[in-house]
Amino acid sequence: MLSGCISPDVAEVSPWGSDMRATMLTAVRGIELRHVADPVIRFPTDAVVTVTASCVCGSDLHGYRGHAATVFPRRIGHEFIGVVSGTGSEVAAVAVGDLVIAPFAISDGTLVRVGAPVDDQLTPDLLALSDVMGTGHHAAASAGVKPGCTVVVVGDGAVGLCAVLASARLGAGRVIAMSRRGSRQKLATEFGATDIIAERGQDGAARVMDLLAGVGADCVLECVGTQDSFDQAVAVTRPGGMIGCVGAPFYDIPAARLAGRNIGLRGGVAPVRAYLPALLADVLAGLIRPGRVFDLELPLADVAEAYRAMDERRAIKVLLRP
Amino acid sequence: MLSGCISPDVAEVSPWGSDMRATMLTAVRGIELRHVADPVIRFPTDAVVTVTASCVCGSDLHGYRGHAATVFPRRIGHEFIGVVSGTGSEVAAVAVGDLVIAPFAISDGTLVRVGAPVDDQLTPDLLALSDVMGTGHHAAASAGVKPGCTVVVVGDGAVGLCAVLASARLGAGRVIAMSRRGSRQKLATEFGATDIIAERGQDGAARVMDLLAGVGADCVLECVGTQDSFDQAVAVTRPGGMIGCVGAPFYDIPAARLAGRNIGLRGGVAPVRAYLPALLADVLAGLIRPGRVFDLELPLADVAEAYRAMDERRAIKVLLRP
Repeated sequence: MLSGCISPDVAEVSPWGSDMRATMLTAVRGIELRHVADPVIRFPTDAVVTVTASCVCGSDLHGYRGHAATVFPRRIGHEFIGVVSGTGSEVAAVAVGDLVIAPFAISDGTLVRVGAPVDDQLTPDLLALSDVMGTGHHAAASAGVKPGCTVVVVGDGAVGLCAVLASARLGAGRVIAMSRRGSRQKLATEFGATDIIAERGQDGAARVMDLLAGVGADCVLECVGTQDSFDQAVAVTRPGGMIGCVGAPFYDIPAARLAGRNIGLRGGVAPVRAYLPALLADVLAGLIRPGRVFDLELPLADVAEAYRAMDERRAIKVLLRP
Repeated sequence: MLSGCISPDVAEVSPWGSDMRATMLTAVRGIELRHVADPVIRFPTDAVVTVTASCVCGSDLHGYRGHAATVFPRRIGHEFIGVVSGTGSEVAAVAVGDLVIAPFAISDGTLVRVGAPVDDQLTPDLLALSDVMGTGHHAAASAGVKPGCTVVVVGDGAVGLCAVLASARLGAGRVIAMSRRGSRQKLATEFGATDIIAERGQDGAARVMDLLAGVGADCVLECVGTQDSFDQAVAVTRPGGMIGCVGAPFYDIPAARLAGRNIGLRGGVAPVRAYLPALLADVLAGLIRPGRVFDLELPLADVAEAYRAMDERRAIKVLLRP
């Protein structure tokens, strides 16, 4: 079982009773699946959830690659869906047997019920709502994407692709995806990208500016977090435009460079919980299929290979089942 | 006459015919009034304006103090109102005799007619519309100030004070001005500040957070442009809030610091021209008196003293008449 407490009062249990397993980061690029103590209900507001599907987050790769300060060993992973298997006495929002989505990070601590019987086909879509789709939506919302506007998405990871989907969902008139890999270009197009730019850096920015009459985009979604990707985002934003950024950015922002062209910047760690009801309704209505970012599915026992596949960019995003 | 071409096709002439005078920056802290060639209409879209009032801009102090790269001598100054004294054959928006306001920087190059006979008492208010009130409004607009929200204004110069006025005009529920000088505190209060914080740095931020229940403000208007003022702005912004910045900021920003709390940043050189019609209507209706930022009036011959008074912060803003 991947560990993934989203708040101190939410825990999980494996589907095999007392046999809780957790993915541990034991060293740089060292992933082990270990048996850990079973979760128990400590507070009346706790619930225990039997995880039915989980996945690897791109942000976990920072620690995996040794780019973020980490004390080893630590439990890693935070995106999951599951079925409630126990509740404390004050839990009213969910009950044993409910299928729930655990929204990443900023949250009021409540688990979100799916609230309808769902086909297993929807599992990837629901799992994508636990982080990556909400994060892509946050990039679009932070940049103020609205009907008819022009959008550039920098980054073709799972979040970038979800940002394309979110922009199309919000009615953007033109969505330019920057991607140089065939399978990701194809998914970006299926998610609503109207144009694909394979070039990067200055060449890529020049191609985007050609498409946008030299003016730049109303909204640019920075879904990578490096100085290079940020510089690319600034280069393709129109004067007065907005950059939406998500995740854990590693760059410095020269204020004068933005202010000289009145470019705004907004975003950060996504409040996925707040976006979940609206996005869940669209998944259940069949309007969006964010789960298509999962292009590899493995059993939890192979979690180390799941990390390797994402680290080496062989997979966009890996879904894990118990 | 202060020189202040806002675009290549706008020039000015002194009220004494061929006797055009311009303020020249001849060295660091060196201001001289010199006779220069009279402006002429070169293109059919040109107009010549007889300046009736002008002023010193805080941004000109960067060059005056030697903080900005400057080639000496150069003409300095860019805020003025005046009367049209000549027009090219294609000028339709204004006619000889019209009182006009020259909006600073980003502009479509048209002069904005006041369009109504005005009392000389309104001269300071109209002059303030050429830059400083529009810039204060831009800080508020960039941060998304709307009815009922909480605002903190960092900086008590003319722009900061106008940002207080702009926030009150937009219906902010609470406007906290950070100012430690009595006369500026008084004007901030008259402009609509609900609270004044005299402390700076960490002490000032702590006082603001006490006022705002430890949460921080929805909108923070950074009207100074230094690293210290920016740090203060970040410290008092609520998670998910916006910082509006104006002018020429000199700081660098680690993106992670903003993203970790979902703090947005927007602003830059103000599109004063775009804001002018709405602000002018409010001045003419007597709803706002932005000209109250002028606390010293001098004849143009004393322009060097005008710069000294602002440099030494003896005056908030100096009005100059021919």
